[in-house]
Amino acid sequence: MTHEIAVIPGDGIGQEVTPAAVEVLEALEIDFEFVEADAGDAVKEETGEALPQETYDLAASADATLFGAAGETAADVILPLRTAVDSFVNVRPAKAYPGIDAVRPETDLIFLRENTEGVYAGHEDRLTQDVSTLTRVVTESASERLAEFACDYVAGDDHDGFSIVHKANVMRETDGLFRDTVKSVADENGVETDQVLMDAFATRVCLDPEQFDVVVCPNLAGDVLSDLAAGLVGGLGLLPSANIGPDRALFEPVHGTAPDIAGEGIANPAATIVSAAMLLEYLGHDAESDAVHEAVEGTLEDGPRTPDLGGDASTEDMTEAIIDRL
Amino acid sequence: MTHEIAVIPGDGIGQEVTPAAVEVLEALEIDFEFVEADAGDAVKEETGEALPQETYDLAASADATLFGAAGETAADVILPLRTAVDSFVNVRPAKAYPGIDAVRPETDLIFLRENTEGVYAGHEDRLTQDVSTLTRVVTESASERLAEFACDYVAGDDHDGFSIVHKANVMRETDGLFRDTVKSVADENGVETDQVLMDAFATRVCLDPEQFDVVVCPNLAGDVLSDLAAGLVGGLGLLPSANIGPDRALFEPVHGTAPDIAGEGIANPAATIVSAAMLLEYLGHDAESDAVHEAVEGTLEDGPRTPDLGGDASTEDMTEAIIDRL
Ligand SMILES: CC(C)[C@H](C(=O)O)[C@@H](O)C(=O)O
Ligand SMILES: CC(C)[C@H](C(=O)O)[C@@H](O)C(=O)O
Repeated sequence: MTHEIAVIPGDGIGQEVTPAAVEVLEALEIDFEFVEADAGDAVKEETGEALPQETYDLAASADATLFGAAGETAADVILPLRTAVDSFVNVRPAKAYPGIDAVRPETDLIFLRENTEGVYAGHEDRLTQDVSTLTRVVTESASERLAEFACDYVAGDDHDGFSIVHKANVMRETDGLFRDTVKSVADENGVETDQVLMDAFATRVCLDPEQFDVVVCPNLAGDVLSDLAAGLVGGLGLLPSANIGPDRALFEPVHGTAPDIAGEGIANPAATIVSAAMLLEYLGHDAESDAVHEAVEGTLEDGPRTPDLGGDASTEDMTEAIIDRL
Repeated sequence: MTHEIAVIPGDGIGQEVTPAAVEVLEALEIDFEFVEADAGDAVKEETGEALPQETYDLAASADATLFGAAGETAADVILPLRTAVDSFVNVRPAKAYPGIDAVRPETDLIFLRENTEGVYAGHEDRLTQDVSTLTRVVTESASERLAEFACDYVAGDDHDGFSIVHKANVMRETDGLFRDTVKSVADENGVETDQVLMDAFATRVCLDPEQFDVVVCPNLAGDVLSDLAAGLVGGLGLLPSANIGPDRALFEPVHGTAPDIAGEGIANPAATIVSAAMLLEYLGHDAESDAVHEAVEGTLEDGPRTPDLGGDASTEDMTEAIIDRL
């Protein structure tokens, strides 16, 4: 069976790290058909649209999408692309790697971020000159779907349960619904949970990241807290992510376009290559996924490494080293 | 002139650290009248109300309020108390102290958190069995008032400007209004600003806290990001805060009731005593405020220290040592 993979490099270093990840996928004995499409600042400059309809349609029909990064237009690109694949959860592992400087080297977390609603539902109004509002939406159905995913996730892998992170002491109805729904799905499935306020989580994860493992949270909380965890493991440069839908999925590094180094061929491809490893797992190629994870880990530990990691390798050097380890 | 100070110890270690801070204030040559009042879980147990009307009225009429902590009822106590003093900004310094273990010892930040609106405005609805909503409110007037405070703040102290932290790439209308309003007030006042997305801030502050100084942000962002900074400086145990209104203000440690050690007389009083130092500054007693800050810093460095800081002193020992240094 051929897997159709949409490849959307986007802007800046997206143009460098996305082809690197495709090279890694091509090195495997798997039948892929890669279809490239445009999105981001550059295509907006040309055509007026950051996300051309054909790119949206491609993501909405491909088996999986690999996305790089977009610049100023990031929100106009990534939010509709998440919708295109109907993704209800954003899986964001944040783990420190041996050999890589980290504020908290013991960090090893998985964020399962709700990916469709919260403040991202985006109903905003300017009621008067003075007053603007945003309607934050939390539904039982989206919370349930996320919780079911989380229960499967912890069962499939070796986890003791998950933490529900929320701010229900202030957002009593909405985050209360989120917390209670996720908790009751977990209870039904015999999955252990604990509940942590998002502000308390921010303090505690800095002090002792090992007290957490899998973290289930609303959309914006997941955005901010996974980026916090990125800080603890040494930056966004190593973090992959998976936007999972019922029938397709989109994989992207958490980092941006890095305009300061774009075009120099020295961007660190690790986050995108690990995102490709998540894509492999999603498509059922677990052995190959593990092999890519291990190859990246080995390369991070022994080099060659790109300048952001203190080395002087190029994107291509590092990619080849990873492929050599497969 | 006598200053009337409402003293609301609340629950748990609030009952220990609040009297300690009052002792410090009493040791100064300033004319205070302290009036104590109840709030929190214990009074709710007795009377059915976490915040009795007389406590609210006292805070609404006193020159300043010193609050300890509340347990389960924290939100029912602190949010109305912030309203009682009409506080529009929550000033939260997060600074590491010499001699105290910190994840990021170079952290020295001031959060100026909008204190009246955002998701805290609290209009929530359960529209259907499935759907709940919360109306997040951002006004130009509240953003302006906060920005004016921030401009005065950076002018009065030795700061180069401030960072505006927001999520306007997603909350375009509401956080857009916040960002643009704060920026334009700063521009009018000749104050330099930069703008940082709140998720990017979370990563960057872990990697290099020194790149930030004064941070101006919406309500929930201020809640979460200041707690993150608390994690970087070693925990909530040392963080004070000031809720400032036009005519009165409320001062509180950022920590909670610490039920695990409550009643043992070993709670660390530093955060509440530093909150009292902020109260002194607010009332115009700058020299005494500085003296208290220095006495706390000296005691943190040389001891005696409470068990949470690795020492074996009691709350009373540490308080006396601070008073001896005045
Ligand atoms: C670009 C932006 C809209 C996006 C988000 O907030 O989800 C980004 O921060 C992310 O986390 O992927
Ligand atoms: C208790 C809670 C309502 C409160 C808040 O969210 O503001 C607390 O976290 C704080 O920061 O003072």
